[in-house]
Amino acid sequence: MTTYADSGVHLGDARAITDRLAAIAARTRGASVLADVGAFGGMFSLGAWGQLKEPVLVASTDGVGTKVMVAAALGRYDTLGHDLVNHCLNDIAVQGARPLFFLDYLALHRADPDVVTALVGGVAEACRLAGCALLGGETAEMPDVYAPGGFDIAGFVVGIVDRAEIGRNGEPEVEDFLVGLPSSGLHTNGYSLARRALPPVTWDRYEPSLGTTVGEALLAPHRSYLDEIRSLTDAGARAFAHITGGGIPENLPRVLSPTVAAVIHRHSWEPPAIFRLIAEAGAVAGDEMERVFNVGIGLVAVVPSDRLDAVLAAVPEGQPIGRLVERQSDERLRFVGEHAGRGTG
Amino acid sequence: MTTYADSGVHLGDARAITDRLAAIAARTRGASVLADVGAFGGMFSLGAWGQLKEPVLVASTDGVGTKVMVAAALGRYDTLGHDLVNHCLNDIAVQGARPLFFLDYLALHRADPDVVTALVGGVAEACRLAGCALLGGETAEMPDVYAPGGFDIAGFVVGIVDRAEIGRNGEPEVEDFLVGLPSSGLHTNGYSLARRALPPVTWDRYEPSLGTTVGEALLAPHRSYLDEIRSLTDAGARAFAHITGGGIPENLPRVLSPTVAAVIHRHSWEPPAIFRLIAEAGAVAGDEMERVFNVGIGLVAVVPSDRLDAVLAAVPEGQPIGRLVERQSDERLRFVGEHAGRGTG
Repeated sequence: MTTYADSGVHLGDARAITDRLAAIAARTRGASVLADVGAFGGMFSLGAWGQLKEPVLVASTDGVGTKVMVAAALGRYDTLGHDLVNHCLNDIAVQGARPLFFLDYLALHRADPDVVTALVGGVAEACRLAGCALLGGETAEMPDVYAPGGFDIAGFVVGIVDRAEIGRNGEPEVEDFLVGLPSSGLHTNGYSLARRALPPVTWDRYEPSLGTTVGEALLAPHRSYLDEIRSLTDAGARAFAHITGGGIPENLPRVLSPTVAAVIHRHSWEPPAIFRLIAEAGAVAGDEMERVFNVGIGLVAVVPSDRLDAVLAAVPEGQPIGRLVERQSDERLRFVGEHAGRGTG
Repeated sequence: MTTYADSGVHLGDARAITDRLAAIAARTRGASVLADVGAFGGMFSLGAWGQLKEPVLVASTDGVGTKVMVAAALGRYDTLGHDLVNHCLNDIAVQGARPLFFLDYLALHRADPDVVTALVGGVAEACRLAGCALLGGETAEMPDVYAPGGFDIAGFVVGIVDRAEIGRNGEPEVEDFLVGLPSSGLHTNGYSLARRALPPVTWDRYEPSLGTTVGEALLAPHRSYLDEIRSLTDAGARAFAHITGGGIPENLPRVLSPTVAAVIHRHSWEPPAIFRLIAEAGAVAGDEMERVFNVGIGLVAVVPSDRLDAVLAAVPEGQPIGRLVERQSDERLRFVGEHAGRGTG
């Protein structure tokens, strides 16, 4: 947590912030964390992982995009840490890794101790839930880069996997099923478009179709698929796509070999109300929605047909949303049909 | 490098940027890097480190503060990556770690391909010089968070050390020497104060005492102490303080046990001209300068007295700048005397 000490925040606040963040981070730390507050880098022992034949570290970094502006407008700073951590965790979990530790970078116009504590507190809580140590972080006050009330937050996660475990259920093949898991909202992508369709003036409005306000629905935290990915892998899933920026069309082909293509059946699920609201309020075309948002599917698992029953038994919220076919052209992914609830919602 | 694909940049630029960044990152990668572009997390094998008894990962995150504003004003985007990487590398090197890999987070008002390529190109070049893989990164376009032309950049580094190697030269003790290594400028701290003392209108001005313009002097990259730290450790240095935000008074005590205090002899070095210029132009008191800037010393090594000659032979640019004494009060660090060139520069 050392780097909080050289944060450049107002001197009066800096010490109080450092102490509060140290206490917050301490709650996430097990015996593997060696360095105390005051060290220049956080130290994490791999002693407990000595049984791995060839340990492979898997790392990812991400932000939460302009979701920071929704949080700032609503004055809700406790959920963004869950967004940040869960986005990063999902990115390494789809590669088969278990999380080891996380670091956060937070830059603000003004490092208000309550705002900083809420933001980093959310990061720490999400880390704790995932069994991941919050090993360190940096809090920087940059009044000339960020507007009053403005800030940005980024995260960095490191996980571990044994090389022999990578791809142990085989490569995706023709006739494999695509099993989708529901998203918990927009997750952390598409907020620039969402904010154009649903501007701040709408955020206090209660929407019956959402069962909450527009702002609360936009701020719904990015969920973690850590446990589901583990269960799905044990049940036979071969590969996973985390549906982030670019939607299913950008993210699913990443895990497919060049000889297969994906067919996605829209009728197999109904996009949640927040997506219908964005499409209608912003006059966003359906295929544009699919290229920008997760439209209700936050994770896609590739499952051999003889493992489909086992997979759906292991993770009941999973639903078949498509299939792999032989690739015939440049096209790597095709949507067919219309969504189940289209026109009725 | 996957996460560059979900960067949210303008669609026309995104593909071009992704391809250019993938090529840039590829130059930094050795056999340990397993994941190809398109994976969700970068993969780094520890197979080559199997001989370590208890491998310990050391991680750090940092930004470059408002040095980003100097770079933007001068239109020079190639050096900030060196600042970012070297700051992070120094932070883990002082803990005894060798760098494994680095990830960058870049957020901009507008992801101009040339600016992004120059920024990440600098990151990659600094990584390559240090034998560190650029494993991944995220580029986010956030026009409502950053002002036109504005951006922020943060980095994350992971290194490795054998637990038995940590502190192998013993703990800092009374009578140990403090050996300082020159900084290459402001490094990455104190820019908010420096920009108040020397505002943008001065940056084009040629300053004879600097031998260059004010802007160029402010933008001088943060140097790496990686090789020097290794040589100093082999020669017997016990501990290192990387002098970042908070200067020597905040950073050196971090590595000292509670029973010792540091005495720093100002007469043992002369602060470079850029610090004198800031102090004079901004009417900044000497002790305030010492609390904000490195004032010419970027790294302090703690050296047992019987190893001083060996240390100075191994790293000739090192110079004794003080000594450890028995701690008598709350005071953990004291400056004595005046700088060598005071009043003559």
